[in-house]
Amino acid sequence: MSLYVMKFGGSSVGDIERMKRVAGRIADKQDEGHRCVVVVSAMGDTTDELIDQAKQLNGQPPAREMDMLMTTGEQISVALLSIAMSGIGRSAVSYTGWQAGFRTDETHGRARINDIDPRRVLESLERGQIVIVAGFQGMTVDGEITTLGRGGSDTTAVALAAAIQADVCEIYTDVDGIYSTDPRIVKTARKLNEISYDEMLELANLGAAVLHPRAVEYAKRYQVKLVVRSSFNHNEGTVVKEEASMEQGVVVSGIAYDKNVARISILGVPDVPGVLAQVFGKLAGEGVDVDIIVQSGVQDGKADFSFTVALSELAHAKKVIEGLHSELPYREVTSEDNLVKVSIVGAGMVSHPGVAAQMFDVISKEGVSIKMVSTSEIKVSCVIESGNLQKIIQALHTAYNLDTEEQAFVGGPKDRR
Amino acid sequence: MSLYVMKFGGSSVGDIERMKRVAGRIADKQDEGHRCVVVVSAMGDTTDELIDQAKQLNGQPPAREMDMLMTTGEQISVALLSIAMSGIGRSAVSYTGWQAGFRTDETHGRARINDIDPRRVLESLERGQIVIVAGFQGMTVDGEITTLGRGGSDTTAVALAAAIQADVCEIYTDVDGIYSTDPRIVKTARKLNEISYDEMLELANLGAAVLHPRAVEYAKRYQVKLVVRSSFNHNEGTVVKEEASMEQGVVVSGIAYDKNVARISILGVPDVPGVLAQVFGKLAGEGVDVDIIVQSGVQDGKADFSFTVALSELAHAKKVIEGLHSELPYREVTSEDNLVKVSIVGAGMVSHPGVAAQMFDVISKEGVSIKMVSTSEIKVSCVIESGNLQKIIQALHTAYNLDTEEQAFVGGPKDRR
Repeated sequence: MSLYVMKFGGSSVGDIERMKRVAGRIADKQDEGHRCVVVVSAMGDTTDELIDQAKQLNGQPPAREMDMLMTTGEQISVALLSIAMSGIGRSAVSYTGWQAGFRTDETHGRARINDIDPRRVLESLERGQIVIVAGFQGMTVDGEITTLGRGGSDTTAVALAAAIQADVCEIYTDVDGIYSTDPRIVKTARKLNEISYDEMLELANLGAAVLHPRAVEYAKRYQVKLVVRSSFNHNEGTVVKEEASMEQGVVVSGIAYDKNVARISILGVPDVPGVLAQVFGKLAGEGVDVDIIVQSGVQDGKADFSFTVALSELAHAKKVIEGLHSELPYREVTSEDNLVKVSIVGAGMVSHPGVAAQMFDVISKEGVSIKMVSTSEIKVSCVIESGNLQKIIQALHTAYNLDTEEQAFVGGPKDRR
Repeated sequence: MSLYVMKFGGSSVGDIERMKRVAGRIADKQDEGHRCVVVVSAMGDTTDELIDQAKQLNGQPPAREMDMLMTTGEQISVALLSIAMSGIGRSAVSYTGWQAGFRTDETHGRARINDIDPRRVLESLERGQIVIVAGFQGMTVDGEITTLGRGGSDTTAVALAAAIQADVCEIYTDVDGIYSTDPRIVKTARKLNEISYDEMLELANLGAAVLHPRAVEYAKRYQVKLVVRSSFNHNEGTVVKEEASMEQGVVVSGIAYDKNVARISILGVPDVPGVLAQVFGKLAGEGVDVDIIVQSGVQDGKADFSFTVALSELAHAKKVIEGLHSELPYREVTSEDNLVKVSIVGAGMVSHPGVAAQMFDVISKEGVSIKMVSTSEIKVSCVIESGNLQKIIQALHTAYNLDTEEQAFVGGPKDRR
């Protein structure tokens, strides 16, 4: 008998029929002899509808009140799922985030979990009940209701799994698991049986929307064994854990891409100390996240440098740079918005030098030029023109021996939380 | 500067436009120099929609889980109303029932308030905030979420007004106030300026749906000054308070009716001690509420007696009586379902004997026969055939000098909670 935490996202409980299917799924797990704690998100579009109503009343609704509003979505889900469980003869109990013991800081809208007191959850398990906990929410020491922000329900599941020392934390979603790359782009993409926390973290940060990086960090910190699997079928899914038992000989585990990339270049900048700090300090102060930064060599006391920002922030970032002109006498600012960032990720890279060189070689053999490069211990990213995305991902996928014969399963819309 | 509790029902906040109107109304009150605590019900049909979803999952959903589900309705209302208040530049804060300090017993679905700790409400008032509290809900000492059942939001408002020693508790609804009788039946019905707690209690128990009897009882016990008024206009409304300052010379304040009435007669029952206790004990045990009971004289050691039950419970009640036949050898059971109960209510009756006789006289002059009678200190009820309802109410209304020239305002659908 194992203790499972099972997390179901909003699309998995999007309507009454899906809710029933999830209830059946949990009952199956219990029938296998396991104890179950379930974490659920708000149903389908509930959250968007609530936000829409709030915006009609107030263009800038206070974060505290938005938390009061939004947390009802998960409370409805847990109550209905508990009602569904008892409808099929199972003893179940639902808890809000605060009832389940989630104590957070006071940052409404994106609160951090301070600690979890899972006493009531454990007591209910003792009584043989299936425990259903609202994801995405908690309470401050002053009794204020908070939400955990993006990735909040995944984080709830992982943190709760750590707090109650669950054997496994299963993340049910609308895809079969973690893929070697996006199956919509590469038909021969293969589902990974295992992946390390670090690899998952890189993939999640690179835009693989299946798991939120925050939840992966939490899982890594508390060594929670994660399984990502589909709520629509019984396929095995992907195990995320420490790398010790990783598959042998795999250098690159997955290939990710990010279309939300734009490049800004500042040309002819005086090469004096503190210039980079000035530019990127200003951008950070304006809330613009910068990803890759490349500085060219200095000529005649002037340097060029380029960096990437999210495409959606390009206009804002350019305005910030233009506003700096009086203090920073650069020659010219240019930008490009038809870009994509392709990344290879693999824990095996650490011990295999030359992986980056191989990537550059594959890309150049396809006649595509690399605009920018960035590397980490287990990742190499190249920025290329977006028109080449499919060709390059396919070529890399084949070059790193990731192709499979199977046809990938790709489900419905991605879960938001 | 006074401290107001303002309660708005579900139809008053039924959509975004109405929500905005309510927000404006509260702002007006604040502009008059008053402090405001607001109690709100769930928006329009929210509750029905949630119940419908639950029933699709489970024909008999557990009461605890229904409370988890239903309380989200009020939480959405308070959050949205608070967001609306800040949208028009007012500092507001919303609280769930448990945050506002409502501690209840453990009877899910119809919990009783044990006590209220209004500390957070008072602190927010100190800070100059408008405090918006979810009606209808509370929490047990074990941290379980409960609902107060029928009339719960009215009761929340009155109980909170008592706890924070508010000067007035205003119940905003879809009618202008308490009427001398139903304005849909009698065009010359007049709005009462004042009414006593006891009269209001009788009227509420007799089916005048504007205020729930439980809230009136609470107001009487804690001497909370109630005002019932419309959320759609600025008319004065009806003040409900102790009878000291009641209008002089008024004997009958209002006329109520109840169509949900049926009569059961048990004929030829042996006149032995304990028969009544046997019959009505059994009915009570089966959950059948009995209203008027009449026993005829005894002949040949046999008696007849009749009683009224809710029309909706007639079939059930008859089945219970028939099941008693082996223990209780009566001759026959008959029933009537085309009935209505008409009641006159007035605190002045106590000092005016002959009010009942006048009522019987008015009814008999209209050629209508009285089937059953019941009286209390401030009420006389007669059961008549339902076809005569309009004629009799109009005649009584005129006879007791209740007619007015004004046309009554009658609003939209009644609030449920």
